[in-house]
Amino acid sequence: MTAEQMAAEAAATTPASAGSDGPWRHRHLLDTDALSWPEIVRIMDLATEMTEIVERRRPRSDALKGVGVTNLFYEASTRTRVSFEVAAKHLSADVVNVSVGGSSIEKGESLLDTMRTLEALGARVLVIRHAVSGAPYLVAREFRGSVINAGDGRHAHPTQALLDLFTLRRHLPDGSLEGRKVVILGDVLHSRVARSNLWTLTAAGADVWVCGPATLLRGFEAWAAAGIGGQRRFTVTSDITAALRDADAVMALRLQQERMAAGLLPSVHEYAARFGLTTDRLSGAAPGCLVMHPGPMNEGVEIAPDVASGPRSLVTEQVANGVAVRMAVLALCAGAAA
Amino acid sequence: MTAEQMAAEAAATTPASAGSDGPWRHRHLLDTDALSWPEIVRIMDLATEMTEIVERRRPRSDALKGVGVTNLFYEASTRTRVSFEVAAKHLSADVVNVSVGGSSIEKGESLLDTMRTLEALGARVLVIRHAVSGAPYLVAREFRGSVINAGDGRHAHPTQALLDLFTLRRHLPDGSLEGRKVVILGDVLHSRVARSNLWTLTAAGADVWVCGPATLLRGFEAWAAAGIGGQRRFTVTSDITAALRDADAVMALRLQQERMAAGLLPSVHEYAARFGLTTDRLSGAAPGCLVMHPGPMNEGVEIAPDVASGPRSLVTEQVANGVAVRMAVLALCAGAAA
Amino acid sequence: MTAEQMAAEAAATTPASAGSDGPWRHRHLLDTDALSWPEIVRIMDLATEMTEIVERRRPRSDALKGVGVTNLFYEASTRTRVSFEVAAKHLSADVVNVSVGGSSIEKGESLLDTMRTLEALGARVLVIRHAVSGAPYLVAREFRGSVINAGDGRHAHPTQALLDLFTLRRHLPDGSLEGRKVVILGDVLHSRVARSNLWTLTAAGADVWVCGPATLLRGFEAWAAAGIGGQRRFTVTSDITAALRDADAVMALRLQQERMAAGLLPSVHEYAARFGLTTDRLSGAAPGCLVMHPGPMNEGVEIAPDVASGPRSLVTEQVANGVAVRMAVLALCAGAAA
Repeated sequence: MTAEQMAAEAAATTPASAGSDGPWRHRHLLDTDALSWPEIVRIMDLATEMTEIVERRRPRSDALKGVGVTNLFYEASTRTRVSFEVAAKHLSADVVNVSVGGSSIEKGESLLDTMRTLEALGARVLVIRHAVSGAPYLVAREFRGSVINAGDGRHAHPTQALLDLFTLRRHLPDGSLEGRKVVILGDVLHSRVARSNLWTLTAAGADVWVCGPATLLRGFEAWAAAGIGGQRRFTVTSDITAALRDADAVMALRLQQERMAAGLLPSVHEYAARFGLTTDRLSGAAPGCLVMHPGPMNEGVEIAPDVASGPRSLVTEQVANGVAVRMAVLALCAGAAA
Repeated sequence: MTAEQMAAEAAATTPASAGSDGPWRHRHLLDTDALSWPEIVRIMDLATEMTEIVERRRPRSDALKGVGVTNLFYEASTRTRVSFEVAAKHLSADVVNVSVGGSSIEKGESLLDTMRTLEALGARVLVIRHAVSGAPYLVAREFRGSVINAGDGRHAHPTQALLDLFTLRRHLPDGSLEGRKVVILGDVLHSRVARSNLWTLTAAGADVWVCGPATLLRGFEAWAAAGIGGQRRFTVTSDITAALRDADAVMALRLQQERMAAGLLPSVHEYAARFGLTTDRLSGAAPGCLVMHPGPMNEGVEIAPDVASGPRSLVTEQVANGVAVRMAVLALCAGAAA
Repeated sequence: MTAEQMAAEAAATTPASAGSDGPWRHRHLLDTDALSWPEIVRIMDLATEMTEIVERRRPRSDALKGVGVTNLFYEASTRTRVSFEVAAKHLSADVVNVSVGGSSIEKGESLLDTMRTLEALGARVLVIRHAVSGAPYLVAREFRGSVINAGDGRHAHPTQALLDLFTLRRHLPDGSLEGRKVVILGDVLHSRVARSNLWTLTAAGADVWVCGPATLLRGFEAWAAAGIGGQRRFTVTSDITAALRDADAVMALRLQQERMAAGLLPSVHEYAARFGLTTDRLSGAAPGCLVMHPGPMNEGVEIAPDVASGPRSLVTEQVANGVAVRMAVLALCAGAAA
């Protein structure tokens, strides 16, 4: 099933307006799997417009003027927190940052009480990062405004997947991923980035390959066989040569050091030797193969320094695109909540 | 002595303008005991106006435009810090947040040096939370602008008491607490919230009852017998049934876990069993008895989850009202300092 | 060589515009040693204008409107971080704060990756504090906007030196340091403040004396003999009486407690007894000798409490002047980067 077919199908089952300029039906963004392909395209299109504001070619928008956006981060983060903060300010929102350090969360307040408190203090959009998978869903069930998932445990990181897609579309001919081979490489098992990307990349019609040590792929073969949404299949392998062969793009995932302790990997050194993304390994990929990483990178582990900063690397552009994509998500979801 | 009598007395001893629209005489707000009843009413009235801004029915005010408001928090806090931050921004102030994590306080700078530094950096209003009782008084002695106490040790939390009063007045007929039975329940000994509320609630003419384990009431019987300001008496008891009987409102206090370690309580379980605010216990109260909590709540300890989120609970509204009350306090005190 | 001569020499070797209103040639401010005397004077002059904004006699400037200023602090700081934040906001910049607590730096991301990330997120000016000497130089080599060093290890703290100079000029007749005796007292070895001040004070023509325990002066005698820039000599001594004799100004440096552990000092008590700045010791200085300290102060150690808050103390004024000086630096460097 091609992206075009999916789009046609989605258009038949969702309001005609979903993919155009009509009302946006999602108050929350919890994961990409709730989005139809026309909706994903609409986010991409709006993000393209938003880049004009990001690049200061247009003045900031008043889309969220007077709207309280609260960044509630239970895990440390620079790029995602600042990205949402900058995005919200570009839309003239009133931004409040709450991080675990220096918050009453240390006093053991429950997540739902914290949500209710922030709502009573004026939050209309709650951007939440939490170490526990599913936490944003719990919050969304009761929050009256919009909840944007900024990463929950191993589960999902939808704005990352959307900015990855946005970045790929800008660099592929005609902006299409149809039939393109995209490899997700590394610690797939623990990666919320991988999960959210699987949805959007297969929705875009890409030929998705997932590659890593067998211990970090558990359960993915069954999922691949069943297909995403029961239809969109992807390939799972521990053979990095096969995975990279003729690849159009590779996303290297961050290797969490704590996986070693869990006995899932023999050593960082061994991992780097067998699965690190190097120039040599990329020689088997398609000419001009694009390289991505959600950051922060462990250079010399999952990605070689020369690859990370080489001409194929889109790592920095991913970060820049993230602001525009998050502006689009904030504007659409806040609009649906209003 | 009724609130009406107190108002008359206060009117005779303070400038006539204190309770009306004349100049506000308090540069600082360190505790509620410095406020006459007409002054308390004036804060309530101004807070009522401020709710229009909080609820976005009016645009933000320029009352503090160009005025530096610095939140100096030596203790972790979400609700109070964000509440002051949002309140100050609604008044167009220039807000700076300083918390213990990431501040030079870690380098051992004295409180007064920190105050002088922040003053020199442009702070005209200093909102301070400190673990040591009396710390804001020390600061106020030398600070040239306004000091607002956002909670000092076990001593005082005046804006909490004012927002509690504001919330009660909104829910009682004619907005009057005259003769209403209000119970403060729990760890009274260590509660700055209880102390500040005793002043405002008795000033409002309420019949105030203080209830908790005997070990957490030490000293309060003598205070109750002497009366607040030598006149306004309140009742102290460990009999929760007597306390709750026909009560019009109950404020459950947060139980600090560290009290157990100090040997003041046998266990959290025992405390919950004997003094937790449950639906069953509330059956003895007046119909429609209001339930309050300053937050953050230990649900299942000092308050049962169904009570905390039940129809009588004003917990969330307390938080929302806090923004309007703090706007009123900031505007009045900053005006007096100008 | 006098400051006047230096100015003439500098004028001959740098573009005529450097010291006047022409284009500013420095995109970064990494240390004061990169600044010619006319350039230093230009910063002083612009800072004088900026004080009108700081003191609210003029409305905020639009000089950095739409410009992203990111404060990246790897070390705890109140005064410097808030000072830059307030300065940037007075210029209408879009300010983002990133501190080690609550940032992905905890995940081990490299400094350069963090810089690239913040740049991609819109930072055009990066204000950086880092425990490692030279870190801002590393960043400046690749950052496309302006890097302002807000203190790197033991190396440099250029805006502190500039605000010290600005403060001295405001209190000396004709605003001239020519021939004035200025003493830098204390832990010179580990002080970035001392290093940056040596450049600006000798450039201003002051007779600079450096004084402290011999263990905390290592290497300074050789430097003094060689002269700064091969020309401007200063005096090094452990004789505090000689150092303070007829001094026009003294800067006491903060004593880092960790020096004791390193065996460089016997005890804090001993240090205070031998090198603490007391009223008694100041009796040998010139009448009206000015007292300065970069803060935060250990009162009773490197400076006596009565001296710290006495009539000669400029400590608080240093802080206030810091905002104006940083506004000048931000405006000039951001202008050069545009």
